[in-house]
Amino acid sequence: MHCPIARSLERVGDWWNMLIVRDALHGLTKFEQFQKSLAISPNVLAKRLADLVDCGVLERQLYSEHPPRHEYLLTERGLDLRGVLLTLLAWGNKHFAPDGVSVRVMDSSSGRIAHPIVVDRATGKPLDPATTQFVPGPAATESVRRRLDHAAQQQPLVLRRARRRKPNSAASHA
Amino acid sequence: MHCPIARSLERVGDWWNMLIVRDALHGLTKFEQFQKSLAISPNVLAKRLADLVDCGVLERQLYSEHPPRHEYLLTERGLDLRGVLLTLLAWGNKHFAPDGVSVRVMDSSSGRIAHPIVVDRATGKPLDPATTQFVPGPAATESVRRRLDHAAQQQPLVLRRARRRKPNSAASHA
Repeated sequence: MHCPIARSLERVGDWWNMLIVRDALHGLTKFEQFQKSLAISPNVLAKRLADLVDCGVLERQLYSEHPPRHEYLLTERGLDLRGVLLTLLAWGNKHFAPDGVSVRVMDSSSGRIAHPIVVDRATGKPLDPATTQFVPGPAATESVRRRLDHAAQQQPLVLRRARRRKPNSAASHA
Repeated sequence: MHCPIARSLERVGDWWNMLIVRDALHGLTKFEQFQKSLAISPNVLAKRLADLVDCGVLERQLYSEHPPRHEYLLTERGLDLRGVLLTLLAWGNKHFAPDGVSVRVMDSSSGRIAHPIVVDRATGKPLDPATTQFVPGPAATESVRRRLDHAAQQQPLVLRRARRRKPNSAASHA
């Protein structure tokens, strides 16, 4: 599995896992807290938490010795998933909030509602399909290169979509 | 399911679905192209594509009338998933690329490699846990409010993690 997106999803692509990470980012740490929030069976939750510990997203730590009690804390790797959740939040708010928005992100100092977008760290420029492309890195395999080469030969998606609106002219290009 | 992250994941949280969207963003449109790229069974792929059409991420369009042939194009909703995939890419590259990076994002005009981060659209400020928080929106249910209230009462995650490094002092807070 050489694509970094695929590799990421292998770790967290599971629906429940991302919701556990969401709750952890909201400050939940204890088994009972996750169980109450997610309303899943203890067996399933225990398995998910163990998976997330195995892949280094959570760390299991003793917080009380008598009696022994553990909690689950986000590692740096887990905290770095915040960007993924912010983009999922923005997407859900834009496309699946028919009754209005239920969760937003607020700048704590100004109280302003923030709207998450993805930009380049160095330039601050939005990473739009019109101005950026996926390219092979030094460790790209032959199959990754082929896929990205194919992508590079495509016309920009938006242009293609616009043209496809006329079925007849579209058919003549097929 | 009132959390926008949960609602989003309901649609695309499935591992394969996100990889189909990835391929679509790379310009693949045809059943055979997806099948070759993903190496999944035709039955599974047909089901996934139908799901993505159902939830408005892909659109099925006729591109040839004789013989009838269809392709799958990203809708605006599907194109908007690019941010999610960019953050997954960045996360995978940072944490799961032991042999080096295999896919990167490049600014097409400058040729510079971009590093995706999530910022506020209006201010350009990174949406860090230290400076931002999740707050209920107008449509928040009681359970969403409770979860976010709890989150607001937590100390910043990074501080808590630093303190927890000393098991004894941590235990005294439990």
